[in-house]
Amino acid sequence: MTWCPIKIISTGMMKEVNRVEMAIQESLSGQSCALISGGDPGIYAMAGLVFEICQKKGIPLFRPVSSKNLTTVPTGQRPARSLDTENGLTLEIVPGIPALAAGAALAGAPLTHDFAAISLSDLLTKWETIEKRITCAAMADFVIVIYNPRSRKRTWQLERARELILAHRDKATPVAVVTGAMRENQEIVFTRLDQLHTAAIGMQTVLFIGSSATAIYMDFIFTPRGYTDKYTVMTGMASLQAGNPDQEAT
Amino acid sequence: MTWCPIKIISTGMMKEVNRVEMAIQESLSGQSCALISGGDPGIYAMAGLVFEICQKKGIPLFRPVSSKNLTTVPTGQRPARSLDTENGLTLEIVPGIPALAAGAALAGAPLTHDFAAISLSDLLTKWETIEKRITCAAMADFVIVIYNPRSRKRTWQLERARELILAHRDKATPVAVVTGAMRENQEIVFTRLDQLHTAAIGMQTVLFIGSSATAIYMDFIFTPRGYTDKYTVMTGMASLQAGNPDQEAT
Repeated sequence: MTWCPIKIISTGMMKEVNRVEMAIQESLSGQSCALISGGDPGIYAMAGLVFEICQKKGIPLFRPVSSKNLTTVPTGQRPARSLDTENGLTLEIVPGIPALAAGAALAGAPLTHDFAAISLSDLLTKWETIEKRITCAAMADFVIVIYNPRSRKRTWQLERARELILAHRDKATPVAVVTGAMRENQEIVFTRLDQLHTAAIGMQTVLFIGSSATAIYMDFIFTPRGYTDKYTVMTGMASLQAGNPDQEAT
Repeated sequence: MTWCPIKIISTGMMKEVNRVEMAIQESLSGQSCALISGGDPGIYAMAGLVFEICQKKGIPLFRPVSSKNLTTVPTGQRPARSLDTENGLTLEIVPGIPALAAGAALAGAPLTHDFAAISLSDLLTKWETIEKRITCAAMADFVIVIYNPRSRKRTWQLERARELILAHRDKATPVAVVTGAMRENQEIVFTRLDQLHTAAIGMQTVLFIGSSATAIYMDFIFTPRGYTDKYTVMTGMASLQAGNPDQEAT
């Protein structure tokens, strides 16, 4: 084995544009470069910014040669794929476990049915757009996953979101407040919709606000898909019999 | 090392209730048992059904003793936690990479901003509920992730979903149709909203329907969060300068 020296480039928090530009520059100079995100790089994270910057700068992007079975509808907007990446970047996005999946696993199973993910950060998005999304998600009875609920500077948005959701959903709706999921400092707090603003919430917190179907059992929350309404589950622990499970349920 | 014999219990497709009941029964009999899902067990998968069945049967659930920092608001509905799990199950949900994260990584970065996940399966959910969710998600300009778009028996739902979304969204909206993400048979097809019903779609397909902001660049789709609108990105590949990234952008 050969020891590979690794160069680590880091920027402070909140320097996302700088950090991504530096990663792109490093790759263009001929180095392999990994841009690291917590969770999944494509869910509220840096993968999108790579595309934003490359598009603005006109940097061609290619998939690794190992990418198989890529079919695209011809639009005339894309160059032919090429192995010659001297004038562009070869980009591979490696998926991970997003905070919504890690947090859900700790809370129980809130996301086994339809859900919406909404960031409350209005630094890059107009608040009116965020309000509309919250209201529509509440009306449609989605389980709602809230990213970026509060920060030092953004203090009132979660309280406003709570009001908007309460207009369409029961005040006792179960809520899981998960901070630092799967990390040393992980913490789960269960509460209800009308009290969610009182929970301790930080930058690593993701909230899960139940739909009308979301239930509490023991110290877990879950959203049933309705199997046990459709199929008979025998009560009594010893039973293995189910009513009529011979149907597709997906 | 001791060799551990492993017992594999499997049922056919569409026998979810049977399968989960067998796993619960195995655990209650004193064996360690892992219930395996593709992707993430909590996103449109079997974790929810474990809770459904345990609740119906009154089987107490406990977290592993290693679970730290669990705080719950007392509701009187939960038993005290106990190490004596003879009369119940100790349950740990291990998160994974959901199809929406794996598919998004192949398609580009469609989920870097708010999105809604909707299953088109009306076997356990009323179609009116699904229609309302599709319409609300389209109105709110969410990126829409479609699970279970079509099956042998459910053939018309995707066409109807397309109509509902077209009422609120441009017909040229980019769509990525990802089948078997990260598996041997993976396939990505890029198309547009008004043509999405013509794509080859199966049980392993997840669709990503762009928001009004979702863009195509090369053969990727992505949803910008708006960094490059707010901050100046210098054109020209050599530039590392960004305008004013010294602000929180999350």
